[in-house]
Amino acid sequence: MSVQPSSDPAAGAAVKAADRAHVFHSWSAQGLIDPLAIAGAEGSYFWDYDGKRYLDFSCQLVNTNIGHQHPKVVAAIQEQAAKLCTIAPGFAVDVRSEAARLVAERTPGDLDKIFFTNGGAEAVENAVRMARLHTGRSKVLSAYRSYHGATAAAINLTGDPRRWPSDTASAGVVHFWAPFLYRSPFHADSEAQECERALRHLEDTIAFEGPQTIAAIILETIPGTAGIMVPPPGYLAGVREICDRYGIVFILDEVMAGFGRTGHWFAADHFGVTPDLLTFAKGVNSGYVPLGGVAISAEIAATFDQRPYPGGLTYSGHPLACASAIATINAMAEEGIVENAAAIGENVIGPGLREIAERHPSVGEVRGLGVFWALDLVRDEETREPLVPYNASGADNQPMADFAAACKRGGLWPFVNMNRTHVVPPCTVTEAEAKEGLAILDEALGAADAHTV
Amino acid sequence: MSVQPSSDPAAGAAVKAADRAHVFHSWSAQGLIDPLAIAGAEGSYFWDYDGKRYLDFSCQLVNTNIGHQHPKVVAAIQEQAAKLCTIAPGFAVDVRSEAARLVAERTPGDLDKIFFTNGGAEAVENAVRMARLHTGRSKVLSAYRSYHGATAAAINLTGDPRRWPSDTASAGVVHFWAPFLYRSPFHADSEAQECERALRHLEDTIAFEGPQTIAAIILETIPGTAGIMVPPPGYLAGVREICDRYGIVFILDEVMAGFGRTGHWFAADHFGVTPDLLTFAKGVNSGYVPLGGVAISAEIAATFDQRPYPGGLTYSGHPLACASAIATINAMAEEGIVENAAAIGENVIGPGLREIAERHPSVGEVRGLGVFWALDLVRDEETREPLVPYNASGADNQPMADFAAACKRGGLWPFVNMNRTHVVPPCTVTEAEAKEGLAILDEALGAADAHTV
Repeated sequence: MSVQPSSDPAAGAAVKAADRAHVFHSWSAQGLIDPLAIAGAEGSYFWDYDGKRYLDFSCQLVNTNIGHQHPKVVAAIQEQAAKLCTIAPGFAVDVRSEAARLVAERTPGDLDKIFFTNGGAEAVENAVRMARLHTGRSKVLSAYRSYHGATAAAINLTGDPRRWPSDTASAGVVHFWAPFLYRSPFHADSEAQECERALRHLEDTIAFEGPQTIAAIILETIPGTAGIMVPPPGYLAGVREICDRYGIVFILDEVMAGFGRTGHWFAADHFGVTPDLLTFAKGVNSGYVPLGGVAISAEIAATFDQRPYPGGLTYSGHPLACASAIATINAMAEEGIVENAAAIGENVIGPGLREIAERHPSVGEVRGLGVFWALDLVRDEETREPLVPYNASGADNQPMADFAAACKRGGLWPFVNMNRTHVVPPCTVTEAEAKEGLAILDEALGAADAHTV
Repeated sequence: MSVQPSSDPAAGAAVKAADRAHVFHSWSAQGLIDPLAIAGAEGSYFWDYDGKRYLDFSCQLVNTNIGHQHPKVVAAIQEQAAKLCTIAPGFAVDVRSEAARLVAERTPGDLDKIFFTNGGAEAVENAVRMARLHTGRSKVLSAYRSYHGATAAAINLTGDPRRWPSDTASAGVVHFWAPFLYRSPFHADSEAQECERALRHLEDTIAFEGPQTIAAIILETIPGTAGIMVPPPGYLAGVREICDRYGIVFILDEVMAGFGRTGHWFAADHFGVTPDLLTFAKGVNSGYVPLGGVAISAEIAATFDQRPYPGGLTYSGHPLACASAIATINAMAEEGIVENAAAIGENVIGPGLREIAERHPSVGEVRGLGVFWALDLVRDEETREPLVPYNASGADNQPMADFAAACKRGGLWPFVNMNRTHVVPPCTVTEAEAKEGLAILDEALGAADAHTV
C-alpha cells in the first residue's frame, strides 16, 4: 500500500463542526465525544484530514473483511445503481436470487433459504421469531459474554452491559455461561474439562427452565466483541446434540465471525456443526451497503411453506446490497481472501502475538484464529485480574485509554473493548501490513505494562 | 415517459427459478407465492421480462417518492461508492454531517439532532428507547390501525394483524383508538365531534393507565398502510397538549408520510405540530440505499449529553446511504418535487378519485392528500360494510384479489391492503401519468363493483 493522503485541516474542522451540530452518535454521551473526521480509506488503511494514515486493525466494527474500497465491489455497486437501486421484497430480482444462491452455497448443511435483512440485529430478531413459531415455545437461551444487536429482542439476548438500560425482565430470555477456560466459570483446568462442565451447566439450566418451554439456544459460534473465546473441541457438537434431544432450535450468530473472518467462510466450518438457523451481516458485503440475513434449514423453511411468515422489512433483499454481496463473495473466492485470512492468522498474527505476549506482563492471554484475535490484558499475570474492572469508565478505564492512545499515535486504529484489544484486520491484510501492525501493538503495550502490578 | 422494455421470458424464468430455490420472502407463505420477476424500472414505471410495463402506483412499499432511478441520486451513489462506501458510526464524515443537516433543516421545530438507522423499524425502536430513558417510565401508547415495523418493540406497537404472531403481552404497550370519522370508534357524526371524542378517549386511557407510568405516545402523523386516515383539525395539537401536561414524550412516525408524500416535507407541517421525536425512512432517499432515522428535540438530546445513549448499529450514518439522502433531498428541492406532489394531489388525483367514486358503488370513501390517498372499498355504501372482512384471506379475499388482478392487467401496480387500495404514486408523477393511472383504476373498480350488494 502506498496511499498518500493529502492534508486539509480546515476541511476536517468543518466536517467535525457539522457533525457536532447535527449527528447523534451510537453508544455515546454526545457531549463527551470528539469524533475523528475521516477523509478517505483504501485497503487496510484510512486517513484523516491532517494527512495522518491509520492501519485499520478494527475493520471499523469488524465488518470490512475485504478491506476498504475493493475495486470489484465498488464497480458492482456503481453498475447496479445504474440499473436498479431498489425494488420491493415481493418481487424476484436477478441480484437477489444470485446473492441468496451464493450465500446458500457456502452455509453449512441444508441452510439453503435466505431471508435478507438490513443488518445483524434484524437477522437475530427474525431468527428468534422463526424459532418461536417453529417450536411454539417462547424462551430463548443465550450466553453471558455475547452481543447480538440493539433492537428489542436482540439487545435482550445480549450478554454484555449494553443490555442493561434496555433490559426487559419479561423478554423470555435466559442467560447461561459458555466455556471460557482462561476465566473459567466452571473452575476447570483443561479444555476437555471446561467443555464437559459447560455442557453439564447447559443441560442443568435446560432441566430447571423446562425443555418444553425453550424455543432456541443462540450462540455466537466464536463470541466476537465479548472476547473471541474459541470454544473447546466438542462444545458446539455437544450443544447441537442437546438441541436435537429436546427439539430446541440451534441458532448460530455469525454476524461477526462469518464470511472469512476466522479463515473459513463460516466459523461453524471449524467445528463441523450445522445449526438450524445462521445469522450473518458485516462480512457478507463488508458493510459497503447495509445487509444482513438468516440462512434457514429445510425443516424450518417448511414451517412457513403454507403458513405465512409474519415478518418483513421494506429493504429485504435490497438490490444494491445484494449486488455488493455478489461482488464481495466472488472476489473473496477468486482472490483466495478466506485462505489468506487463515494463512496470515496461522503464520503471522498468531505467532507474532504470542511472541509479543512473552515480552509484556500486561498480556494475560492470546487467543483466536484467522484475522480474529484477542489480547486479554491483565494487571497481574498470576491472578489474571483484568487490566481494568468490568465495564469501567472514566479514570477506572485509564489504562485501556492510554493503550488505545498509544496505538493511534503509532498509526494503528485498534478495536478495544473492556480489558481487551482485538486484532481484527481485513481478511485481505498482507504479511507486511500485519507485521507493521504487530510492531505498533508491541510498542503501545508498554502503556499497558505501566499499569501492571 | 417512453421507456420501451425489451422481452426476454427465458431470463425472467431463470430469475424466478433461482428466487424460488433460495430466497425467503417477507410476510409470505413461501409455497403459495409466485413473485413477478422484474427486469428494470424508471421514473413512475417498472417492467417485467415479458416486456410488460407497470405504472407504479405503489412506489414499491411507498418508498420511491422520487421515482425509480432518478439520475442525480444514481450519480451520487456512484460517486460516493468511488470515494468511501463505509465507515464506523464513531467517526465524523462529510456526507453524514451534511445529510443530518439537510434533514434537521426540514424537520419541524427544534428536532435538530439526527440518529441514523437502516430503516423505519430501527428508528421506532430507538425513539422508544430514548423516550423510556428520558422519562424513566416504561409504557408506550400506540394506536390500533397503525404500522410501526417488525422488530420486537416496533411490532408490539403496531396496530394491525401482523403484530399477532409476535405479540408480547408484557411489552409495555397499550393500544388506543385514533380518530377515523368514516368508521368512527366514537359514534361521532362530524370531524369536530370525532376529534373531541378521540381526545377524550385518549385522556381517559391515560388516566386509567396512570400518566406517571407512560413514557410516550406514538402516532403515525397520517396512518399509512392502516388506511391513510387524515386526522381531523385539532387532534394532533390536542395530543401535543396532553403530552405536555403529563410529561409524556410525543413521537410522530413519519416513515411513510414524510419527505414529500403528503405535499409537505413532513405531514406534521399540515398541522403545525412539533413532536419530541420524529422517525423517518423510505422517502428520505427513496430507499435507494437502506436508511432511516430519528430526529431528536434539544431537550431529549440533552438527556444523552453526559450520559451515554445505549443504542447503536454498525451502519448508523452509512456513507452511501447518506450520500443518496443528500442527492434526494437536494433534487426534491431543486425540482419542486414536494410542490408537485401537493399540486397533483389537489388538482388531479383528489378530484379524479372523487369523480371515479361517484361512478362506482364499491367506493365508500376517498381520503388523502398529496400523493397519499386511499379508496375504502365497501360491499354496501349505506352500511359501509367492507368489501372483504378484516384480515381476510383465500376465498374471503376474492373481491380484492379480483380488483388487484384487474389493475395489473390494465398495466397498473396497485398498493392493496385489507379492503382498501391506496393511490401512492411517486411525488414526481406527472399529470398525464396520474390520469393514466386513474383511468386504469376506474376500469378495474368494475371488478370490485361486481361484489357489492
